[in-house]
Amino acid sequence: MNAGLFSMDAQALYQQLVKNLQRVVTPDAHLVGITSGGAWLAQALHQDLAMPTSLGIVSSSLHRDDFFKRGMAESVATKLPFDVEGAVIWLIDDVLFTGRTMRAVVNELFDYGRPKAVHLAVLVDRGGRELPVQADVVATQVSLPSNQTLRLTRDNQGQFTFSLED
Amino acid sequence: MNAGLFSMDAQALYQQLVKNLQRVVTPDAHLVGITSGGAWLAQALHQDLAMPTSLGIVSSSLHRDDFFKRGMAESVATKLPFDVEGAVIWLIDDVLFTGRTMRAVVNELFDYGRPKAVHLAVLVDRGGRELPVQADVVATQVSLPSNQTLRLTRDNQGQFTFSLED
Repeated sequence: MNAGLFSMDAQALYQQLVKNLQRVVTPDAHLVGITSGGAWLAQALHQDLAMPTSLGIVSSSLHRDDFFKRGMAESVATKLPFDVEGAVIWLIDDVLFTGRTMRAVVNELFDYGRPKAVHLAVLVDRGGRELPVQADVVATQVSLPSNQTLRLTRDNQGQFTFSLED
Repeated sequence: MNAGLFSMDAQALYQQLVKNLQRVVTPDAHLVGITSGGAWLAQALHQDLAMPTSLGIVSSSLHRDDFFKRGMAESVATKLPFDVEGAVIWLIDDVLFTGRTMRAVVNELFDYGRPKAVHLAVLVDRGGRELPVQADVVATQVSLPSNQTLRLTRDNQGQFTFSLED
């Protein structure tokens, strides 16, 4: 498979994610998007699910185990405008792959307090796990060569697109 | 359900775990048992799977998010007699419940190095997850009231038994 032949309808997957989350997200829960793709998704979900609670953003940069290689590539820092202690949190991300970002992000949350529960929803589970992490809600599962990067982009109209890069 | 009516054949489940692990554990992998029930299981599995690699023990005490409440209840500390950096690790535990122990234990491993992969095998998955953790291999799944504690014990002959406590 190469990027030219790749086609995955990110908008349709987003609608599926909305549908799946409607069944399980309780009104007391806080959506927290993982930068950058997950933060865009969480922002859209916060509106489409009419969440009464405040929205958060979390960055994995500080806790990633390869921080020494990546550095502070992302300029958006963690913003959690609610009390993490005792909170029910739904982490939102575009792609679940090795699970290393998820470990980093959960540790970042725990720096702010001890949540009652942390759930995970992703657009795409692409397999290839290197840590025992799972998503509670997934729009779709795909199998991709490990050397390829699946990336969510958002255009000026807020439409989501997936691209696949070598 | 009360403890008097509870019956779960830990020995039969152990045999199932052996069978399930035989299919997926590669000879380069290191078994690491979580104290105390998981460490007993890992010790038995190390022998029954004829693992050529050294066996590890890991304690969740230091990284648990309720450390301030629990303290150092366990006297057995982490022992990882191999290079964690780049290692393929199979964590072994008796019961998977909230996932909080698993978060603690994975963080403990990362204190020693950056493993290539960390997989998880448990005798019993009792649901009730509070973090997005999953086991790769499970002998059985049960549903139990959250106020009950499922505990593995080992007798002098090395036989495993489960007990259920309020």
